[in-house]
Amino acid sequence: MSGWLDALERLAGSRAKAGLTRQLRPRPAADFVVDLAGNDYLGLSAHPQVIEGSARFLDAYGLGATGSRLVRGSTEAHAALESSLAEWMGAPAALVFSSGYLANIAAVRGLTTVCDLIVSDAYNHASLIDGCKISGTRTIVAPHNDPAGVAAILDAHPGQTALVVTESVFSVDGDLAPLAELHRVTSARGALLLVDDAHALGILGPRGAGGVAAAGLAGLDDVIVTVTLSKSLGGAGGVIAGPPQFIRHLIDTGRTFIYDTALPPAIVGGVQAAVSIARAADDRRALLSSRAAQIVSRLSAAGFAVVPPAAAVLSVPAPGPEAAVAWAADCRDRGVAVGCFRPPSTPDGTSRLRLTLNAGVPDAAFAHALDVIVECAP
Amino acid sequence: MSGWLDALERLAGSRAKAGLTRQLRPRPAADFVVDLAGNDYLGLSAHPQVIEGSARFLDAYGLGATGSRLVRGSTEAHAALESSLAEWMGAPAALVFSSGYLANIAAVRGLTTVCDLIVSDAYNHASLIDGCKISGTRTIVAPHNDPAGVAAILDAHPGQTALVVTESVFSVDGDLAPLAELHRVTSARGALLLVDDAHALGILGPRGAGGVAAAGLAGLDDVIVTVTLSKSLGGAGGVIAGPPQFIRHLIDTGRTFIYDTALPPAIVGGVQAAVSIARAADDRRALLSSRAAQIVSRLSAAGFAVVPPAAAVLSVPAPGPEAAVAWAADCRDRGVAVGCFRPPSTPDGTSRLRLTLNAGVPDAAFAHALDVIVECAP
Ligand SMILES: Cc1ncc(COP(=O)(O)O)c(C=O)c1O
Ligand SMILES: Cc1ncc(COP(=O)(O)O)c(C=O)c1O
Repeated sequence: MSGWLDALERLAGSRAKAGLTRQLRPRPAADFVVDLAGNDYLGLSAHPQVIEGSARFLDAYGLGATGSRLVRGSTEAHAALESSLAEWMGAPAALVFSSGYLANIAAVRGLTTVCDLIVSDAYNHASLIDGCKISGTRTIVAPHNDPAGVAAILDAHPGQTALVVTESVFSVDGDLAPLAELHRVTSARGALLLVDDAHALGILGPRGAGGVAAAGLAGLDDVIVTVTLSKSLGGAGGVIAGPPQFIRHLIDTGRTFIYDTALPPAIVGGVQAAVSIARAADDRRALLSSRAAQIVSRLSAAGFAVVPPAAAVLSVPAPGPEAAVAWAADCRDRGVAVGCFRPPSTPDGTSRLRLTLNAGVPDAAFAHALDVIVECAP
Repeated sequence: MSGWLDALERLAGSRAKAGLTRQLRPRPAADFVVDLAGNDYLGLSAHPQVIEGSARFLDAYGLGATGSRLVRGSTEAHAALESSLAEWMGAPAALVFSSGYLANIAAVRGLTTVCDLIVSDAYNHASLIDGCKISGTRTIVAPHNDPAGVAAILDAHPGQTALVVTESVFSVDGDLAPLAELHRVTSARGALLLVDDAHALGILGPRGAGGVAAAGLAGLDDVIVTVTLSKSLGGAGGVIAGPPQFIRHLIDTGRTFIYDTALPPAIVGGVQAAVSIARAADDRRALLSSRAAQIVSRLSAAGFAVVPPAAAVLSVPAPGPEAAVAWAADCRDRGVAVGCFRPPSTPDGTSRLRLTLNAGVPDAAFAHALDVIVECAP
């Protein structure tokens, strides 16, 4: 049976024609590229204290966790990180997963133990969508950032216990969900609210505690939060924060928790150091705000429809997938890495550049990168 | 809405009554426990060269990959590891994921692009089952390790392109699937065979190339292999190995590949070192065989129904979940870590100890651990 390979070749051909081929570009350790593409918003991934925190646990524990969290994988480093994260985020309890993707699957699936209807924002991340799918629970897609739309869906299903799922800062466009309004809608109707705070942790809220904290919803009984450790904290891993009863439920029944090798202790150690720095990093957050303003004014002046970002992610519309690819390629050729999002990675089917802010990029390099982006524009 | 927390409390109460409560036990870096529970079969997680390989990439790249593989996450370290793994496993190409769990989801879902029926072994790992579920493809569960049973299912669905999914060495019982026979069944019927080689890589096959290589199936067009980097290689991460056309398909369309942060370069570096050691580790593999024989003869003599393991995982039946928990707890109190598997982690609903071999455990400690297990038996 190698007919399947021909079938895959044909599909690849169609994608190529539509400008939707993707290419891995392995980077060397020192690529002298200005990073306006990654998610290392606070510039902590290469911070000396983060490296040192990681190296210490690498030496102490070895490379891997050697088992799932319930077998050999839970170390004192995991427990300490869970305490730190809960305290920082203002959550009663937190549970670390090996990735944000698997945390989101567990959060959605775990909550459907007590919910029989999911209302999911149209722009939600793939991991949340996969969580809905894998839960087997009826899912209604709500219009993007539309509390009234969510209310209408809930009101149309009066007998059901609903779970409303949203990101705080959306991963592609960088816009912020109206969390306080959404919570008024859910709490008035006995629904639960699950917020993926991946792109807001470290950036928004008091001491960077996240978008949920910024909206005044931290620690509430009917709000469950997920975050990743792979963005502003510069590491890897995912977290679910919420009431201890839900955390216990996940430990006992969460498939992507129970049947998955724990996050390596060395990553946990590095992230622990990053949390300490991030909490005190109001200076870095101020730098991100001022750069956001710079980028908006510069690109607006050049004629692009850029909206001021809620956090550290901006989206710049491109005329089409090929133009977006060419724009990003020209920037890369001139030493500036920018994201290029095309269908199916963009929720609305358009193509765009995705620019991210990184407090670790020096001022001069950032200014140069802005020049390059404008000069390479289609 | 806090009624949901009461509902979760009630469920927790039922689990407690059934002896199914799980407990996290964070371990310190030096816990002086003999590890017969983890998956660090070759004892590489704390090997000095592995630590050193990891530390080098930690210094060079920083803590995290800072983005998905297609944005900023692909480094030269990832590419090099993919080449090494493909060469070792005898596969034409390989793709690294952040976990074995997410690799399995991608493999199953990706293959259903060209398959409209899944035949899944009854004892398959949660990640494979979740892959089936998330694919939305009709799935028939086949009796465990039963090529004739698989053939009967395929023959009953003549018009369909089927995907047969199995582990090589099963994760709980450590028994080996009849891979060559299964392949005769699939290839005669135009079906594809997906093998999760997680517990055989580094242990079975020429130079530890895995269970698929041991069965003479490496590199075939109709066999796709997944492995984890979290077991014999002592690290973390997952891999799909197969024809380059399928790897390309995954890069372009695999949701758990595209929308997930890349495995940290420091983990990649450590695993790369582990691969070199594992390929040359026939001495460690011989040690595992001799310990497997020891453990079987010792436990058989003590009256337990233990079958000789295919690789480094053994299963010892316990009278029930409470007895299994007590047995494991007594061992732990005496400094020996053993796995304790209860429903829903056991495919057949029984409870048991799961013992694993670890070539890094000194001989005397291993002998002591055997004494403790027998002395603590219910
Ligand atoms: C909003 C959002 N949620 C979850 C994830 C997944 O997190 P991780 O990369 O840690 O798996 C991402 C991106 O990767 C994301 O952007
Ligand atoms: C057979 C099998 N496949 C896949 C996995 C998942 O791999 P990972 O822990 O790297 O996510 C595991 C265990 O963890 C396993 O035992």
